[in-house]
Amino acid sequence: MTDSRALSDIGWDELQALDIADRAAFFNHSDGEHHVLMAQQFSRERMDAIGHLATCIRQIAKEEEGARFLQHLLWTKRTMLYFTQPSSRTFLSFSSACRIVGMDRGEVRDIAISSEVKGETREDSVRTFSSYYDMIIMRTEIGGFAERMAWLLAHAGRPVPIINAGSGSDQHPTQALLDIYTLQRSFEKRGGIDGKSTVFVGDLMRGRTVRSLAQLLSAYDDVRMIFVAPDKLQIREDILAMLRSANVPYELTDDFESTIAQADAIYMTRVQDEWDNTPGETGSIDISRFSFREEHLRVLSPDAVLMHPFPRRHEIEPQVDHDPRAVYWRQMRNGMWVRAALIAGLFGREQAILDYHDANV
Amino acid sequence: MTDSRALSDIGWDELQALDIADRAAFFNHSDGEHHVLMAQQFSRERMDAIGHLATCIRQIAKEEEGARFLQHLLWTKRTMLYFTQPSSRTFLSFSSACRIVGMDRGEVRDIAISSEVKGETREDSVRTFSSYYDMIIMRTEIGGFAERMAWLLAHAGRPVPIINAGSGSDQHPTQALLDIYTLQRSFEKRGGIDGKSTVFVGDLMRGRTVRSLAQLLSAYDDVRMIFVAPDKLQIREDILAMLRSANVPYELTDDFESTIAQADAIYMTRVQDEWDNTPGETGSIDISRFSFREEHLRVLSPDAVLMHPFPRRHEIEPQVDHDPRAVYWRQMRNGMWVRAALIAGLFGREQAILDYHDANV
Amino acid sequence: MTDSRALSDIGWDELQALDIADRAAFFNHSDGEHHVLMAQQFSRERMDAIGHLATCIRQIAKEEEGARFLQHLLWTKRTMLYFTQPSSRTFLSFSSACRIVGMDRGEVRDIAISSEVKGETREDSVRTFSSYYDMIIMRTEIGGFAERMAWLLAHAGRPVPIINAGSGSDQHPTQALLDIYTLQRSFEKRGGIDGKSTVFVGDLMRGRTVRSLAQLLSAYDDVRMIFVAPDKLQIREDILAMLRSANVPYELTDDFESTIAQADAIYMTRVQDEWDNTPGETGSIDISRFSFREEHLRVLSPDAVLMHPFPRRHEIEPQVDHDPRAVYWRQMRNGMWVRAALIAGLFGREQAILDYHDANV
Repeated sequence: MTDSRALSDIGWDELQALDIADRAAFFNHSDGEHHVLMAQQFSRERMDAIGHLATCIRQIAKEEEGARFLQHLLWTKRTMLYFTQPSSRTFLSFSSACRIVGMDRGEVRDIAISSEVKGETREDSVRTFSSYYDMIIMRTEIGGFAERMAWLLAHAGRPVPIINAGSGSDQHPTQALLDIYTLQRSFEKRGGIDGKSTVFVGDLMRGRTVRSLAQLLSAYDDVRMIFVAPDKLQIREDILAMLRSANVPYELTDDFESTIAQADAIYMTRVQDEWDNTPGETGSIDISRFSFREEHLRVLSPDAVLMHPFPRRHEIEPQVDHDPRAVYWRQMRNGMWVRAALIAGLFGREQAILDYHDANV
Repeated sequence: MTDSRALSDIGWDELQALDIADRAAFFNHSDGEHHVLMAQQFSRERMDAIGHLATCIRQIAKEEEGARFLQHLLWTKRTMLYFTQPSSRTFLSFSSACRIVGMDRGEVRDIAISSEVKGETREDSVRTFSSYYDMIIMRTEIGGFAERMAWLLAHAGRPVPIINAGSGSDQHPTQALLDIYTLQRSFEKRGGIDGKSTVFVGDLMRGRTVRSLAQLLSAYDDVRMIFVAPDKLQIREDILAMLRSANVPYELTDDFESTIAQADAIYMTRVQDEWDNTPGETGSIDISRFSFREEHLRVLSPDAVLMHPFPRRHEIEPQVDHDPRAVYWRQMRNGMWVRAALIAGLFGREQAILDYHDANV
Repeated sequence: MTDSRALSDIGWDELQALDIADRAAFFNHSDGEHHVLMAQQFSRERMDAIGHLATCIRQIAKEEEGARFLQHLLWTKRTMLYFTQPSSRTFLSFSSACRIVGMDRGEVRDIAISSEVKGETREDSVRTFSSYYDMIIMRTEIGGFAERMAWLLAHAGRPVPIINAGSGSDQHPTQALLDIYTLQRSFEKRGGIDGKSTVFVGDLMRGRTVRSLAQLLSAYDDVRMIFVAPDKLQIREDILAMLRSANVPYELTDDFESTIAQADAIYMTRVQDEWDNTPGETGSIDISRFSFREEHLRVLSPDAVLMHPFPRRHEIEPQVDHDPRAVYWRQMRNGMWVRAALIAGLFGREQAILDYHDANV
């Protein structure tokens, strides 16, 4: 962090003019995160620490006494879940994660029953949440909104932590962290993530989870990425530029089947047609060529893993679910543990968890 | 239980080919229920045990210290309330029951803000819930869906308990159990449910509570049932066949007033026109002849009780509410206690509650 | 209280025929409130006591141990939040207040997923809530509904406390109490509320918070009120009659700028066009003349405070937020503490809090 100023000391325009890595530094402090807004906040060391903390929480929670210890950690804290985009998985994952560490949760999901129908600005709404809650978890269709609010609350003197649970088609950092954790666990006995090849498949243009995950993976050594998509949905140039500057080799193709055998991890995604500029815009694309079928299991390496951020449509046949390399259900549950770890970290409870783990597990 | 296999060992088609009583056995274990899916799971002995447990919880909760004891029982557990059918009463009853024994609750009620709008199958949605929650309480318009999901989760290796809070026009087992508990309490000093006559009134064809309750009542000795409905809404033949095979005498009539004096219990129901095949289909039926009016109190036996699963429209005049034989408000509250008892049982806390009751009440 | 009868002993018509101050007395008991329904329930002494209690809670909650003490107070109690009018601020404020003192919360906000779609009366709905919950907080578009339900539950033998969180265009007593608390804190070093001038601005005809606050303020000595509104939205005659009978001097004007320099407190409000008889009815009114702009800060007394119940539209420019006299964000947070104080009082926990405060803060 070259800039030693606090977030409350920098103007909005000046902040936005910075390179994203420099901006990211404004949301961390010396030991970890103050907010969780963008993948760029996370160093490899920090990802390792978060993964370890998630594992500790997972193991502690197995015993009744441990589960009670965890629930006492943030028992007197309340969080707002402000989700103006449809979501159940991310919402429920966060909600459960909060409860695991004891936090109370309020929610605003339907603006039809909120003050926004009376003409309130979204900025006023969020500042209101900061009056009643100790943290705000937000998911929004507006790119950069979580960052904007973190800056605004810092300047308003009530800088409660903000977690970005998906903003615009841009960032979804906690999804990327749970994906990293799933890869860490999957490759635990194979030397970790270093040296592994990941194949991304589907709507790479608008899949914010892919964008955030590619960013995080680039922090590992000797990784390789293959982006498989129809032309119209191929990954955007900004991500490729980031990979080049990090010296990460990558390939682009629209031939999924040719990539299966090379993969250590295959990351399937659905077409995000809720982002279509005109309804049905992507409906004409033949997505069947970008689907994982039961027959593909024969080609897939015995050591590889198959992931999906869910929800899925037809990208993975249900018959595949029974194969041990299909880790997407475990991936989902990992999200709960990683989010619990992040939240505990935001409130300075990391060491207390590590100590309990050392003493009891 | 003639079949000693577990639910995870039987195929779906084979399971569905079984007689319902044999199917029901797959959802119990030696001491009680693993899931709560259908009235056929409950023997008379088990109904008595659940009623006793509900009474213990009710009495324990009266004292502050007892209420705290109960809340600690399932303090580290979380349940999903997945209600895709409109409901407030059943939802709130379950929600309160969960809290009484300490359970945290997540909910999905409006699929417009869930992943189903993105094309996710309902099976994937429920399997997602099983990743984050320790139990799933579900109410759905799809008959048999809760059973299907219990089977699927058993085969997926994550067999969290499922409670059927109403499915299709078929089953509503927890409503039937609370009705039984209300009858147990009402006839406590009159020798219990054995030998009593119950008059069912209203939309018997589509009232799943009536169907489930008739099933449970047939386990008692010397009971008699009278089904009072307009022809188009009369009870279905499958229930009558069940009663014949259990040697339960019954009558069918459309003359409500003639049955009042004979009743030990009258069970009123509303016309469930949300199930109409075409809107307004049942609107032409004169339901006023199937309503309990203040003047009927003079004919009703002094020992009898008047029940209704609610919501009501005009089936019972509000002036009747003040009569001590109108037990429907108590019936409602009984539901909360019975559900708390069932949930505690699903997690093996039955004995802990009985012990506390013995020692403290 | 001249009438020594209980609420359960008086008929509805007889109650409604009473003067409002006499009606109000039926909802109090000797030490405080049994329900919180109308501003007329609160004497000056009681407002002072509630403000003191709110401050104690606010200070206790600052320490982790204190926050845990508070959460244990009503740990075994459950409340229903029944909000059939759009609201997020009041809802979240109450929800957080409940959690501060440990109460569990159920909610019904969207009648489309409730039993009312099946034809249930609202009276039956509320009586249902009283079966499952220990308190009901309600916000409704129907004037007098909260009072009606308090009376009905008293007669039904299940008199759980009811809090009116806004009913019709009539009353919003908890908002008025939080406004009083904000004024108490703002004028703490200037001799309190006595002798101060309050300027009310905006939609005074339909702003129920203004109506309730004017009522409460009239209990203080030597206060003065100025009502600034366009003719069509000026305060209603019933409030003016109340002020005359309390010997409170007041003025009416439509010239906002002329009033700024005289104010100890300015209370801005938005046009409540959701109450328009025809859509757009009030759209033609030029509201810009009733807005507080940055330039007005120069005219405002250095000791004065600027308030707003929120949500705001354009009545206060965001640039004003940074001025220390803009207390509306603190006002919002005060609401949470005042509501926690009221709730604790309804359950007889007032003395326990005062004792803890004396011993620990």
